[in-house]
Amino acid sequence: MDIFEKCSQFTAAKEAQAAGIYPYFIPLTGNEGSEADYRGHRLIMCGSNNYLGLTTHPKVRQAAEDAIRKYGTSCTGSRFLNGTLEMHEQLEHELAKWVGKEAALVFSTGMQTNLGTISAIVGRGDVVILDKDDHASIVDGARLSWGETKRFRHNDMTDLERVLSGIPDSKGKLVVVDGLYSMGGDIAPLPEILALCKKYGARLMVDDAHAMCVLGGGRGTAAHFGVTEEVDLIMSTFSKSFASLGGFIAGSADVIHYIKHFARALIFSASIPPANAAAALAALEVMRDEPERIARVNQIGERMRQAYQAMGFNTGNSQSPIIPILIGDTMRTIFVWKALFEAGVFVNPVLSPAVPAGQELLRTSYMATHTEEQLERVLDVFGRVGREMGLIA
Amino acid sequence: MDIFEKCSQFTAAKEAQAAGIYPYFIPLTGNEGSEADYRGHRLIMCGSNNYLGLTTHPKVRQAAEDAIRKYGTSCTGSRFLNGTLEMHEQLEHELAKWVGKEAALVFSTGMQTNLGTISAIVGRGDVVILDKDDHASIVDGARLSWGETKRFRHNDMTDLERVLSGIPDSKGKLVVVDGLYSMGGDIAPLPEILALCKKYGARLMVDDAHAMCVLGGGRGTAAHFGVTEEVDLIMSTFSKSFASLGGFIAGSADVIHYIKHFARALIFSASIPPANAAAALAALEVMRDEPERIARVNQIGERMRQAYQAMGFNTGNSQSPIIPILIGDTMRTIFVWKALFEAGVFVNPVLSPAVPAGQELLRTSYMATHTEEQLERVLDVFGRVGREMGLIA
Repeated sequence: MDIFEKCSQFTAAKEAQAAGIYPYFIPLTGNEGSEADYRGHRLIMCGSNNYLGLTTHPKVRQAAEDAIRKYGTSCTGSRFLNGTLEMHEQLEHELAKWVGKEAALVFSTGMQTNLGTISAIVGRGDVVILDKDDHASIVDGARLSWGETKRFRHNDMTDLERVLSGIPDSKGKLVVVDGLYSMGGDIAPLPEILALCKKYGARLMVDDAHAMCVLGGGRGTAAHFGVTEEVDLIMSTFSKSFASLGGFIAGSADVIHYIKHFARALIFSASIPPANAAAALAALEVMRDEPERIARVNQIGERMRQAYQAMGFNTGNSQSPIIPILIGDTMRTIFVWKALFEAGVFVNPVLSPAVPAGQELLRTSYMATHTEEQLERVLDVFGRVGREMGLIA
Repeated sequence: MDIFEKCSQFTAAKEAQAAGIYPYFIPLTGNEGSEADYRGHRLIMCGSNNYLGLTTHPKVRQAAEDAIRKYGTSCTGSRFLNGTLEMHEQLEHELAKWVGKEAALVFSTGMQTNLGTISAIVGRGDVVILDKDDHASIVDGARLSWGETKRFRHNDMTDLERVLSGIPDSKGKLVVVDGLYSMGGDIAPLPEILALCKKYGARLMVDDAHAMCVLGGGRGTAAHFGVTEEVDLIMSTFSKSFASLGGFIAGSADVIHYIKHFARALIFSASIPPANAAAALAALEVMRDEPERIARVNQIGERMRQAYQAMGFNTGNSQSPIIPILIGDTMRTIFVWKALFEAGVFVNPVLSPAVPAGQELLRTSYMATHTEEQLERVLDVFGRVGREMGLIA
């Protein structure tokens, strides 16, 4: 059989394109913050992870440009071999300090941070326990490990205890959860999870891709709950609030040292380029200098969630500046997405299999740099489209 | 059991550090091309993948800086959702044209290109067939697929035929090889591999991370052999000659369209930042404008290989500007590496398990921007150290 046969048989995306309702891979001509451009059409960006709006901050831009002038555009090699700069170690030092851990290790993408960390730590005979809503990179990290994977119902402590209590004491156990869930905008109950980890001798890793720089005064979900010391590994990415590409894992010095020597996604991949590392470092400095950005994005989240709820939209369990608008039907979600897009509001349609069938939603997310005027316009458009589409009365 | 127990038990790296013979993660203070700095110690860089020396080319630097000014430091989202720029599509168009394929798709790292492509194409019931020396990211891509993995002895056509002939006709088959092997510097015999693929109904994917911009007039291993049309998928990375971070896969439009919709490493990871995309695009333009760089790096490779061989070093099967110096013993490889480092020459020690035990080597690699004076000095140092260590007479 021809292994490519499946490719010519896949026609769903082409059909959506032909019908003018294809919502993915939209080539923006500009994407410089709270507004974006698509072929001359101006859009208020409510579908970005640029929570603090730092991708266009003058200090972040300047730091990236300076790094290009100083080091060139790439290190052309693995951290392991020729690709480590002193600047990488400085960034790791600052990140560890920021999240309150002994040591940190930087990877070239957030995805590779999860792939490398989980596959290094979870060996033969170990068990990794995942929340069913964990990010794809956590699931793939577990698949690349040589251990066994078990899953529990999203944020369900009874189900987590059921899973943990079924694993023999002789096995090493790592629980991995998102701190702030990227689609639902809801938070993992870390104190309860930690109590179960302690009871059953499991270690806890928290993926704080979306919570870092947003929750806990910017230090993430563990800080939000005051349990930084108890969370064993804190992971985050640079492609959200850190205004770059990359990721890091932070924990005790011994564990980070081990990951550094066994993470294939670190050793067999080129190091983070100077500009990307410098942007993340500068973003960290700006966040320390301008904590009002963290307060502002949370205020905006609160205000928008209340406004959506007051209008009658279903925002699920959101507790953050990530606010889903639950619709529960594929075609309806696409039609609402398209009406919003045409009215100048960019949001992300999230369909099955990214969410279970029947839980289709529009993911909206906000930035510290959204103006009052932009937010008012977003709510106006949502109200009008929501009524037209029969989502609200 | 505590899953972290393995971490405190891992002491090998700390022992090497204490003994002053730890050769990894060396934090360079500068790494701007054919020379690098380590704490005031100047090194001629013979351990980089910056084959054309473009990381510091003024046009490449300028393009990256301009992109930061125009778009900011990050797209803060997946290509799938909010992270696609028109510039990404332009880069894909130019890359497809350069390698001679209908379409191309850009990923944020070379590793993720392999993970995403192979796991998307190789489904349940399919078989992926790997050369035993294939890069780690190919091996991990196969592990992330739901198909079966089979391996054949490095560049051994008899063994490839043995594997292919043992797979039922009913199964889809994808052979994946490196074009130019990163450690040995030897080339995959694509015409022979293609003949076997044709005979057994398999598709062929070539990872041209190290060959792109070096072999085949810069268009890679398929062009080198004049078999571009027959090779189904051509992959390469931006973290070598393209002076950036990222990667791409090129092939027929249908197959690329399929990968675009099923590659988890594309869909669930942030898009390549504007500066990284712009650097790769500019590097492609410089390569077209300055083909003498491609000729020069190959001449240097030829010249250095002959010089090493004339001195009595074992360069294995190298046919490229990647020249291994085979040593065949761990401690001896580390001692030679250290003597070279102290004498001002940076090379990479490659030890088991990266190569089979007994095949330990020093990997040397060259750039179009190495000067005659630098190369003379490298050969002088190698001669002196080689004699002192008893590697040559």
